[in-house]
Amino acid sequence: MTAQLQSESTSKIVLVTGGAGYIGSHTVVELIENGYDCVVADNLSNSTYDSVARLEVLTKHHIPFYEVDLCDRKGLEKVFKEYKIDSVIHFAGLKAVGESTQIPLRYYHNNILGTVVLLELMQQYNVSKFVFSSSATVYGDATRFPNMIPIPEECPLGPTNPYGHTKYAIENILNDLYNSDKKSWKFAILRYFNPIGAHPSGLIGEDPLGIPNNLLPYMAQVAVGRREKLYIFGDDYDSRDGTPIRDYIHVVDLAKGHIAALQYLEAYNENEGLCREWNLGSGKGSTVFEVYHAFCKASGIDLPYKVTGRRAGDVLNLTAKPDRAKRELKWQTELQVEDSCKDLWKWTTENPFGYQLRGVEARFSAEDMRYDARFVTIGAGTRFQATFANLGASIVDLKVNGQSVVLGYENEEGYLNPDSAYIGATIGSIGSFHRKRFLGPIIQNPSKDVFTAEYMLIDNEKDTEFPGDLLVTIQYTVNVAQKSLEMIMVRSKKSVDVDKNMIPTGNVVDREIATFNSTKPTVLGPKNPQFDCCFVVDENAKPSQINTLNNELTLIVKAFHPDSNITLEVLSTEPTYQFYTGDFLSAGYEARQGFAIEPGRYIDAINQENWKDCVTLKNGETYGSKIVYRFS
Amino acid sequence: MTAQLQSESTSKIVLVTGGAGYIGSHTVVELIENGYDCVVADNLSNSTYDSVARLEVLTKHHIPFYEVDLCDRKGLEKVFKEYKIDSVIHFAGLKAVGESTQIPLRYYHNNILGTVVLLELMQQYNVSKFVFSSSATVYGDATRFPNMIPIPEECPLGPTNPYGHTKYAIENILNDLYNSDKKSWKFAILRYFNPIGAHPSGLIGEDPLGIPNNLLPYMAQVAVGRREKLYIFGDDYDSRDGTPIRDYIHVVDLAKGHIAALQYLEAYNENEGLCREWNLGSGKGSTVFEVYHAFCKASGIDLPYKVTGRRAGDVLNLTAKPDRAKRELKWQTELQVEDSCKDLWKWTTENPFGYQLRGVEARFSAEDMRYDARFVTIGAGTRFQATFANLGASIVDLKVNGQSVVLGYENEEGYLNPDSAYIGATIGSIGSFHRKRFLGPIIQNPSKDVFTAEYMLIDNEKDTEFPGDLLVTIQYTVNVAQKSLEMIMVRSKKSVDVDKNMIPTGNVVDREIATFNSTKPTVLGPKNPQFDCCFVVDENAKPSQINTLNNELTLIVKAFHPDSNITLEVLSTEPTYQFYTGDFLSAGYEARQGFAIEPGRYIDAINQENWKDCVTLKNGETYGSKIVYRFS
Repeated sequence: MTAQLQSESTSKIVLVTGGAGYIGSHTVVELIENGYDCVVADNLSNSTYDSVARLEVLTKHHIPFYEVDLCDRKGLEKVFKEYKIDSVIHFAGLKAVGESTQIPLRYYHNNILGTVVLLELMQQYNVSKFVFSSSATVYGDATRFPNMIPIPEECPLGPTNPYGHTKYAIENILNDLYNSDKKSWKFAILRYFNPIGAHPSGLIGEDPLGIPNNLLPYMAQVAVGRREKLYIFGDDYDSRDGTPIRDYIHVVDLAKGHIAALQYLEAYNENEGLCREWNLGSGKGSTVFEVYHAFCKASGIDLPYKVTGRRAGDVLNLTAKPDRAKRELKWQTELQVEDSCKDLWKWTTENPFGYQLRGVEARFSAEDMRYDARFVTIGAGTRFQATFANLGASIVDLKVNGQSVVLGYENEEGYLNPDSAYIGATIGSIGSFHRKRFLGPIIQNPSKDVFTAEYMLIDNEKDTEFPGDLLVTIQYTVNVAQKSLEMIMVRSKKSVDVDKNMIPTGNVVDREIATFNSTKPTVLGPKNPQFDCCFVVDENAKPSQINTLNNELTLIVKAFHPDSNITLEVLSTEPTYQFYTGDFLSAGYEARQGFAIEPGRYIDAINQENWKDCVTLKNGETYGSKIVYRFS
Repeated sequence: MTAQLQSESTSKIVLVTGGAGYIGSHTVVELIENGYDCVVADNLSNSTYDSVARLEVLTKHHIPFYEVDLCDRKGLEKVFKEYKIDSVIHFAGLKAVGESTQIPLRYYHNNILGTVVLLELMQQYNVSKFVFSSSATVYGDATRFPNMIPIPEECPLGPTNPYGHTKYAIENILNDLYNSDKKSWKFAILRYFNPIGAHPSGLIGEDPLGIPNNLLPYMAQVAVGRREKLYIFGDDYDSRDGTPIRDYIHVVDLAKGHIAALQYLEAYNENEGLCREWNLGSGKGSTVFEVYHAFCKASGIDLPYKVTGRRAGDVLNLTAKPDRAKRELKWQTELQVEDSCKDLWKWTTENPFGYQLRGVEARFSAEDMRYDARFVTIGAGTRFQATFANLGASIVDLKVNGQSVVLGYENEEGYLNPDSAYIGATIGSIGSFHRKRFLGPIIQNPSKDVFTAEYMLIDNEKDTEFPGDLLVTIQYTVNVAQKSLEMIMVRSKKSVDVDKNMIPTGNVVDREIATFNSTKPTVLGPKNPQFDCCFVVDENAKPSQINTLNNELTLIVKAFHPDSNITLEVLSTEPTYQFYTGDFLSAGYEARQGFAIEPGRYIDAINQENWKDCVTLKNGETYGSKIVYRFS
């Protein structure tokens, strides 16, 4: 992926409705890869914002997000008012065939009205390019006609369930609307066959909530033990192995089909509209058993299965004739069922519960419900709970046994207050990061009790005296099974000497502070002792390495709070750390309400010949470090 | 029509959406004839409340009316909250095929969402019976299939325009909804062929606004000179006379089909739902020329016509196979094209501009937008303008050359104020009518400059000492081409004598007032003379006739106002009139701000042996009179 930096972008803006969902989120990735900017509108009725937060880090782009129901004309109009939308890709819609037979009115209301309101706003705001997420379901049983397998776009339509009826009605709407004004509207109707798989990054995929309706997600749940066995509905069809044949398409291939369709609309005669349907399928049918075996191979698990009777309405073969898309859109599938199974398995094992992790909660950090400015809490309901903000990728709160052990503000206002201390913030280089809005986070749960939260900042320091494009990644790892602090011991008394203006002299001096070798810790009293100085971890180390990420973690500070009985140990890969007793806090905090341990490079290193190599970052180089706060 | 009185009704309530429209209004008549009560909901986007006001007088029933768009869930829910709806007949919807190809989004939005919201509310309020106004348009070109003319319900559907697509989508919605809960929903889908004609009363019909799309309304407009000639699109079809064959159905027959369908749903197995389609057509095709000749005969006019080329999309023959309706609904058409033409011609000639007459305006008489309590003004913008209220069928205002010549209140509050004088009111019998709400009005324009406004009251006087069901009709006739008064002359000085308690003694005495024979009129000064007495028109007449309607109109009073130069002449068929100089007005009016001429029977006649026959109304008898106020 090209690290194309957002601040320089002058791209066309694509409104992606339903962009938090399965196919929508994969299409956002491809759109950004192809130089588009995306705005996502989604009512989150069947998805979560976390997929969009992940997309931000995955694509290294901010993705403006609106939680809005398309039926809410006023809410949706905000998007058109705030962004110059160039085209729309419309995924939003209820999509479960089975559910649609239970609650058809909701399907009609949501899918049709949502689309009509969207089209009305497009008309009002002169947006004419529209890619519609239709479905091969509109064909119904194509086997009832002669010579219609593989299914060409000309096959008569005849959906057999309410979900299919809504897709069909919307295709009619688009055709009628195009016919009402053939000069302006440009409609691409994409009829999907069976989308499967996940993004190869393992970061986005189909969120397996509820009982999956489709073969692949079902198998994945059997593989991770959430379902007992796979049911195969009939093995007495007239196919290679007796199971029905379907056309499976990797979701990334499918997403790319949308880019091809959008580009087709963009390249189309400027003074002419169109409304045209394209099948998006591989053209290659796979039987249920073939897919089963591919998934077993990818997962390394022999899934238990049971063959039961045929399902009403199932037919032998529904395979796409994808020739029109190949000819006109210059698009065809590139990935195989095997790839899909491999990527699905990666997604499943790395995200066994999809996006929504137990103990992870988010809240809006301001009244305006900005999704890109949430406070995310990890370990909610456990003995160790950490809260982070997009603003500054800051640590907002750490709670040990329900007790906060760091200073933090209740909401963004606190952090944005110009008087506020740099509390909990990622400081960064010249233009401090503490009020910059980070992308993400990607929150994952790689093993029991361990959570990671990754934030990213694409920073353009053009206007500073240290120009350059910075890509900053902050990864917090929280182990909620393990778990402060007014007595302190440090690794070494050695500290950077400063003159009366706090400018380092280049020398190292000893401070009056207890070390690990001391018999008693230094007690931090109500006023004394006061520290705001840079301790050196290893007096003899050469400060040459820019990237200390791979250095050994060294214990640098131990602190203990006798009342709460909490102990903090700080470990770091950095050569120094600032220790500040918080004697001059502001913006709601009193002096010495907290202290700060800030691992980093030698302060003012840039101006000291011996130290400056450790902070001079050349183009392409990486600067990094690790810090561990261990509570017990 | 049975004069079934509303106050006694315990009928089932049918919600008729679009009940102000062409087919809806005719169906309301049939529903009430069949013992149902109706509530009408209509957004009046293509109709007017005046049709409902007429329906009230025509059916002698109050028809609660809601101006509400079905897409407005909250507004529509009020209807379900305020009435115990038993079933719904759903006409509301945009219906112009041509327009639908121009603005398809509005059609989809309005027709589909309106229906979905309606069904959602039915579900919420446990209303399960639903008759849907579909259209033969859903068949599209049935001639493309073999053996599908006449068209049976089994014919494959394939609408060819957005209007038809919305009907088709709604049929799918109903089928899907029924399938989601087969025990409760009872859906009748009625596919209309070509509705024509009007109600034989001439009071309701198709409002011919804009250029009519259909043959009959177009011919009617040619007949009254609003269009130059009729165009016949093709006379080279393979039919009897070369013009295409359609299935025309009289709107009253069509309306009756709805009653048949509703009764079918009501009689259906209680524990079982259904969703079934019925064609409503005659089964007998007529060519364009046949209809043309029938209409020429009915109107007595040889309409000019021109044959032009075939119209795209037209086919030879679209005739219904109505067997299913006949077999299952026990319904078939009874009227012929000739009846339709006759009734259409009556409607057209009696209402050449439909419901909306130039110079007739209405406003709400209170803040709550009650349609049944409007103030209607006739002659707006002319030199003579009269305003009437449903409340008391009162005269609210008469303006001569812009000057009000009667007292009246600005809004209903004034009339409902218990202190208010009986100003402008129809007084009626014991339970005075002045605060009773009349049905209607029917406003018509029978000849240039002449308008009539007919109000009706169905009054049950059960709790009075004069019991009985009264049907009261008030008809105001306003001649706006012809046109206060402080000098007065009267026909006769003879007046009913009263004792000091104002109770008539039975004698007649002379008053001090100028008669037509006087040389000078009596001047009504600021305080004197004062009158509040009953003058006798003809001392020698025998007061025996209850119904004076056919009596000769006699000039009884002349009054003249020197400042405004307005003269009033009052003519009446009544034997006496009260003349009151307004010395004790109240509720916003000062003494002598106006005077009253109140033609009527001898006051307190009921208690006078000589006079009581003229006010004792026996069952089946009619009581009536005429009054003319002539301004010049």
